[in-house]
Order: sequence, then structure tokens, then C-alpha cells
Amino acid sequence: MWPHCVMVNDEFSLIKRYFTRPNHRKDVIFGVGDDAAVLSLPSGSQLVVSTDTLVEGTHFLPEIDPADLAYKAVAVNLSDLAAMGAEPAWMTLALTLPGVDEPWLKTFSESLFEIARYYGIALVGGDTTRGPLSITLTIHGHVPQDRALYRSGARVGDWIYVTGTLGDSAAGLRCLQGQLSASQSHCQALVRRHLRPRPRVLAGRTLRGLASSAMDLSDGLASDLTHILNASAVGAVIELDRLPLSEILLSVTERETALPWALAGGEDYELLFTVPEAQRGALKRAMSEAGTPYTRIGQITAGVGIDYQRKGKSVELNLSGYNHFEEHP
Amino acid sequence: MWPHCVMVNDEFSLIKRYFTRPNHRKDVIFGVGDDAAVLSLPSGSQLVVSTDTLVEGTHFLPEIDPADLAYKAVAVNLSDLAAMGAEPAWMTLALTLPGVDEPWLKTFSESLFEIARYYGIALVGGDTTRGPLSITLTIHGHVPQDRALYRSGARVGDWIYVTGTLGDSAAGLRCLQGQLSASQSHCQALVRRHLRPRPRVLAGRTLRGLASSAMDLSDGLASDLTHILNASAVGAVIELDRLPLSEILLSVTERETALPWALAGGEDYELLFTVPEAQRGALKRAMSEAGTPYTRIGQITAGVGIDYQRKGKSVELNLSGYNHFEEHP
Repeated sequence: MWPHCVMVNDEFSLIKRYFTRPNHRKDVIFGVGDDAAVLSLPSGSQLVVSTDTLVEGTHFLPEIDPADLAYKAVAVNLSDLAAMGAEPAWMTLALTLPGVDEPWLKTFSESLFEIARYYGIALVGGDTTRGPLSITLTIHGHVPQDRALYRSGARVGDWIYVTGTLGDSAAGLRCLQGQLSASQSHCQALVRRHLRPRPRVLAGRTLRGLASSAMDLSDGLASDLTHILNASAVGAVIELDRLPLSEILLSVTERETALPWALAGGEDYELLFTVPEAQRGALKRAMSEAGTPYTRIGQITAGVGIDYQRKGKSVELNLSGYNHFEEHP
Repeated sequence: MWPHCVMVNDEFSLIKRYFTRPNHRKDVIFGVGDDAAVLSLPSGSQLVVSTDTLVEGTHFLPEIDPADLAYKAVAVNLSDLAAMGAEPAWMTLALTLPGVDEPWLKTFSESLFEIARYYGIALVGGDTTRGPLSITLTIHGHVPQDRALYRSGARVGDWIYVTGTLGDSAAGLRCLQGQLSASQSHCQALVRRHLRPRPRVLAGRTLRGLASSAMDLSDGLASDLTHILNASAVGAVIELDRLPLSEILLSVTERETALPWALAGGEDYELLFTVPEAQRGALKRAMSEAGTPYTRIGQITAGVGIDYQRKGKSVELNLSGYNHFEEHP
């Protein structure tokens, strides 16, 4: 934890100043500054913990804006907690840096605290070390006892939904890589979806007691849905024409080009969830209250794997090529 | 969290197998395999969290035995929790690896689970990514409400103690570096103190309600004690002749050579704590029951900083040179 770096590396002890700010959460009994943080969980609740590492060269390029990097490190973890229906509360940050670059640290830490403040979470500890740039964030939240959402609860007949729209992040990445020609304003909007995904924290909490299973979309629908299917021992029909694509995405490319991005582009950080027929009405009311757009894209079946359909007929997908949609014989 | 690496890097998805083992803690509602872990805290307790990163080249050399590395990553974090008086329960592991080296992973993971089993903690999640070797471990435990031990509670007149002996780890490091000539068996024992420090988990729990302040010794007594003094706004007298040195350490070097290692060598991972006079009897009984050796090394004063003494007289230390003990005029 931070207090330890002082003698090991004086220069690095300065860094912790960037990450020490007054805390306003009453459940932080003690945050940064002792051997460990002490935190108070609401009675009758369970702890939910997720951790993710971002490494330079693997998850981001050296030229990334440190503000985007800090945002994404937090957002990706928040998305995991959202998928559990959890309320985020606290995070710890392990930051490995090649050296002390104060402007970089200032931008990074300000962005980190900005998203933390927005979602009401406190930074309660961490470690700063010298080495190749990487960021490990561990996020802690809580759910009322036995109310967490898992991947394993989907039942035959349940409807399959996603929040928001799919494929914008993949299109944004292609804009960044110069592989998609579009107007500057369109590209900016798509790049923003890639760099600044909005974790569906409120939607996740809303789904408690309504969804039979949930997870967040990080690798892409085609891959992530198989986790729910495997964990729940069920199959699924996905209606390709129902996949929600944004107006911006459809204004820069054809629907057929965009579909593989929506299915396998990854990094959407939307929620994928299933809801029993009996809860459809309650879902509509709750999601409308939460102000979260969502779309029904298919149904859980007793089959195996994903059956992609168009107008009620199965079609074959070759997602490795990302662009073949052939009607099944 | 682990389930996400599948599409990003198939090779790396294999790694998680090394870290997925049956869990025997009943308070792990869900461990590895969903978006996040769900954990149940005992009612009336508070969560205690600490995180530490070990980076190759900064904290360990490339030739380190992966079994020692895994042990140390866990032990260092356990030591932080011990210093809070907390009961360790769960950990998450963020492992960044340059590539998939199966023998290395096997040794590393077996050692990790061995120490986890010894201390009764469960690995509940993590992330494996490609990049320069580094390990971030976040450990979670709990304390009964308002019973955590902090650095800030030392009061004038309290006695200052350490568990175990000091300086063995520093001597072990010098053995490893070929800077200390001693018999092989002596060096082995000292190197073991350096590579396999025993976190004082039981002693930490024992000190709840007895110690007025506590922390773990990672940088060395001279540096770490100042954290307690600063947090508690007090000073201290340290009696140099009372510093506990092991028989092995005294058999390989003179006490005068060993003292700077005991004061500033670092990585002892013993507990440093203060106890009011009124609790001395209870301390003796409790520590004897816990089987933890401990030594009184000084007293908290109304002064500023540390007053090192010999036979009741102040002496001046130059710890930057590591070997000057001059009597104060």
C-alpha cells in the first residue's frame, strides 16, 4: 500500500500525492495512509470485487491521452460491477510507471477522480511502482444479500436483451486506425464510444430481481453470449435484424458491414441480459424509469450454441472473416 | 476479470486454468468465473483491503524462483492485513506475463495456492494479461467493527515493541548478493528470511484491543517508526541494545555490523506496535498464547522524531552510511 513506497523510492513517494484527495464517503473508515483501507459494508449486503489490468502495447498505445486511459481503467471495472447488479463504492489503484512525468500524472489523476466522483466511488488505496506502464484497478461494490446477477440463471424461453447500441466502439477503433473513412464529427462520436464507454451501473442495479442472467459486453456479443449459454446450459436464437445499431454507425457504413462489428467488434461495455416472459412488463417500467435504452435481440432455447436468424430462418455466420452472412440452406 | 480474456488472447485464456481451484471458504458466494466475485462478510465486521505490486527488475530479479515470487507476493500483502489486526479472507491476482511458460506457471500457481491454503484465504478473481512480468495482488480481510489497528493511536508513555527479530532479511539479501561471507547453512537460513518472510497474521489479531498502534516493518524500523510517530504526533526513545537480533545473524557478524540492518535493512515483515503500560500484563498473556516472540525496544515520548539511546544516553546514528554509531556529546 502507498505508505510503503517512501524509503524504497523517494521520487515515487511524491506520486501518491496525486492520488490523495479528501474522501466524502462515510463508509470509508480509513482510506489512503495506513497499511490497508478499512471499509464499512451496509448490513445485509454482500461484497462484489472485480479487477482488470491495462498494459501499454497490449491494451493501449503509448500515445493514448492519460485522461482517456484513466477513464477507461475505471469504466471497464465499473462495467463488470454493473453486470453483477452491484453498487460501486471503492477502488484501489496499482500504477506502474517508467518514470515520474508530472504533467502525465496530473492529467491521469484528474481524469481518474472525475469519473470516480461521477459514479460516487472513493479511491481507498494503491501502490505505485517503477516499471513498464501498466494499470491494475480493483473495484469494490455491494449488492443486497443473494441479489447479485450471474451468468448462470438463463432459462429456456427467457428473452435476450442488450442495453444501448452495439459496434460503435469497433467503428471508433477503425476511425483511430484510419481504416474507416467518415466525417470528422462522425468519427469523433464513434471514437468517443471507444475511448469513453459509459458503464451501465444504473441499468445493472435496475435489473436486480428482473434479469435471470447478466454480463457485460467486452469481447463482443457472439463471444460473450456463449458464456451465459455455457454457464446456464442453454442455447439461443439471435435475430440479426434486431441488433441495435446507432444512427451514427448506420450513417458511416452499411448495416451489413456494421453487423460483424456489433457481433464481434468488442469493447461495447453494454449489458447483455435475459429476462423471463413474466417480468417483461416490470422490465419495461423499470428501464424506462432508469432512462436506459434496451433492445430485445433473441430468446433462450433448449438448443446448443447460438442460432443466428433472419426472418425466422437460420443463417450461417463466418465471424472470423467478419463479413459473411449467408442464408442457411 | 478472468472470463474476459478468452477472445482477446486465446493462449492466455489457458492461464486461468492454473488459478481455478475448488474453493472451501463458505463466505465465497461466487469466485472465479463471472464478471466479479461475490463475497459475504461476517455481520458486525468491517472490510480491510490492501494492494501491492511486484515488478521484475524493481522488486525482484528475473532469475527468482517463481515459487518464491508467488509466496512473497502473498506474504507481503498478508503482512499489511496483519498490521491492521485483520483476518485475511480473499485475494485477487493481476498477473502480467511476457508469454506462456507452463512450467513457470505451474510452479508459481502451486506456491500461490500453498500459502493461500496455509492462511486459509481464497483466490476469488483476477486478470491475466500479456506484458512485462509483474504481479499485483489485492487482499481482502475483515475486522470486528471499530477494532482495526492504526498507526495513529500511539500515546506518550506507551511501550514500543517488535515481533520476532530484525535484520535477518537484509543479511539474507547480502548473502544472495555475495556481500556477506557465512557458512552455507547460515546463509540459507538468512536467505529464507528474505525470500519467505512469515506474515504475523495471528499476532496482528492478538493485538486487537491491546496495541494502541501497529504497522508492519517493510522499509526498516528507523523509517517505519516515523510513520507511527507522525500519524500519532509523538516522539520515541529506541534502546539500541534491546533490538532483537537472531542467533544466526549474531553468529555471522558483529552486533555493531548487524544493527544498521536491523534499523534500515528493510523487508523484515515483523510487526511494530505500541502498548499502554496498563495492557502490558494482558499483552504478555496473549502473545504467549499466540506463541509469538516479541521484544520491548523503547517508549513513546512527547519529543520529536526518534531518540536512539544506549545505556540511557542519546547516540547519533548515520543510517545513510549504515555503520556509524557515535555517542552524542
